[in-house]
Amino acid sequence: MKEFNVIERFFAERGQARRDVELSVGDDCALVNPAEHKSIAISCDTLVENVHFLADMPAKALGYKSVAVNLSDLAAMGAEPAWMTLAITLPNIDEAWLDAFSQGLNDAAEYYGVALVGGDTTRGPKSITITINGQVPKGKALTRSGANNGDWIYVTGTLGDSALGLAILRGEQTLSGDAAQYLIQRHYYPTPRVLAGQSLRNLASSAIDLSDGLVSDIGHILKHSNVGATVDVDQLPLSAAMRESVEYEQALSYALTGGEDYELLFTVPESQRGALETSLAHAGVSFAKIGQISTGNKLRLMKEGATFKPINFSFEHFTS
Amino acid sequence: MKEFNVIERFFAERGQARRDVELSVGDDCALVNPAEHKSIAISCDTLVENVHFLADMPAKALGYKSVAVNLSDLAAMGAEPAWMTLAITLPNIDEAWLDAFSQGLNDAAEYYGVALVGGDTTRGPKSITITINGQVPKGKALTRSGANNGDWIYVTGTLGDSALGLAILRGEQTLSGDAAQYLIQRHYYPTPRVLAGQSLRNLASSAIDLSDGLVSDIGHILKHSNVGATVDVDQLPLSAAMRESVEYEQALSYALTGGEDYELLFTVPESQRGALETSLAHAGVSFAKIGQISTGNKLRLMKEGATFKPINFSFEHFTS
Repeated sequence: MKEFNVIERFFAERGQARRDVELSVGDDCALVNPAEHKSIAISCDTLVENVHFLADMPAKALGYKSVAVNLSDLAAMGAEPAWMTLAITLPNIDEAWLDAFSQGLNDAAEYYGVALVGGDTTRGPKSITITINGQVPKGKALTRSGANNGDWIYVTGTLGDSALGLAILRGEQTLSGDAAQYLIQRHYYPTPRVLAGQSLRNLASSAIDLSDGLVSDIGHILKHSNVGATVDVDQLPLSAAMRESVEYEQALSYALTGGEDYELLFTVPESQRGALETSLAHAGVSFAKIGQISTGNKLRLMKEGATFKPINFSFEHFTS
Repeated sequence: MKEFNVIERFFAERGQARRDVELSVGDDCALVNPAEHKSIAISCDTLVENVHFLADMPAKALGYKSVAVNLSDLAAMGAEPAWMTLAITLPNIDEAWLDAFSQGLNDAAEYYGVALVGGDTTRGPKSITITINGQVPKGKALTRSGANNGDWIYVTGTLGDSALGLAILRGEQTLSGDAAQYLIQRHYYPTPRVLAGQSLRNLASSAIDLSDGLVSDIGHILKHSNVGATVDVDQLPLSAAMRESVEYEQALSYALTGGEDYELLFTVPESQRGALETSLAHAGVSFAKIGQISTGNKLRLMKEGATFKPINFSFEHFTS
């Protein structure tokens, strides 16, 4: 099978269509027609086997997650997903694997309305690079640099589930049953907060998606916005599965440093707090207020009025 | 060194800036502002060591060529280069190698006015994926599907030089001196025909860039346009270096099947022939009329009125 045909047959022909795609896979370039008065948000992520995903990860989950992690970047900017390209490197053409992978990828693409418009297939150790384009009204994108002293800090969803799911898959936690299955699914099928991101556009002062863990990622907001933050760890949202599976201190550690949550962390000025909470409730997304932006450039983790130190303090995927 | 810092330090900070880039590397996404009334052309190419480039290819040439092959896709659509992302996989962080690679990449980006706006660095066998965006006035993009019976077939530049240069590098041709150096440079530093592509917009009926060899690539135009073609091989443009280095029949074989020329092949109706030749001459690009579109779906290679059969009939990079 020729390289070209893999993209066409498994992805483009089965994938989501969009009316603004004038020409899809099959020419030297794709042609798309952006909406007027919008900026284009562009993000690019590579997932490498044994670095970003386990070799035995189900193909369908990998296809889904490859799109989801890119969508999460668009969500953090408040952008609507539009178009993407897929560069996939495979050791061999395994049609059953490609069938399942493309099903997961196309499921995510269809659900979030993103069209695959180009790609390239090459032979080598398994890796996936997706470059995604979204659209956002000019001047309305959320960035990491707008947080101000006094703004409230929020996160969507629950934290740490993906990291605990990974620990189960790696045999570092011996858990089974429904809770374990839930946590593994959270690792395999993260939910990019695309609608939540869009609903934050006129309300949040800054936003970021949680890919490396809260402690690491909030650091980017502090640095880019030149502010500090206090987080009350007792306010961190934890799933029932997390709570029933590990001790509370361990759960807090996963929530603070676990990584791969793909939830949004964002800051909101006091004046927008009511509107924000109404808007997110309408979007059907759970959220929690976990702290407040301060002056200085430090992150302070607090628990019952005292400084809190989590068990682990770094997360670099699972290479370390 | 963190993955993120490689893109920022070696590429974004040193790279070409553009006024339509609102936010570059350093947030969840880049933000760019497309021009009004234009379509966006998107292309994605992966280059893998020992598949698409030799392991001892100079880093600077590899950086340049990685951009050039993507620019060539934009050229074939008549698009102006705008923004790109770079996903680079490296076995280790070699600063000297990255210095040279980024110099070549940034040279090409600067010359053709394309801004690097995002990327990702991962560890593994060396490979480079670039996704490039260009802009083209709505409805004016060149495609593979517009060729009509009677249209003239043209190519830019000279053909086969890159393939002969590669043969020299691989020791399959024992040549030396200025001609050999010229041919090797043509392999390392192809010239994407970006301005020529734009000047073809209202004149050519179809276009494609020559990456896999003329015989293979013209086939895409015949298929998408549902036409045939006759090419007079004596009209194929050959460089002086090619002519003096190998026998004429061998030269024709390189020109027809060699691959990696990154020249444009395009078709022009008789009514636009004069305007086309004036326009390309103004753009300072050499070009040659090599044949004519016909009915049927076959490519006929002719030499002095008889069918011509080249020595080799396939080109699949250098894996085979």
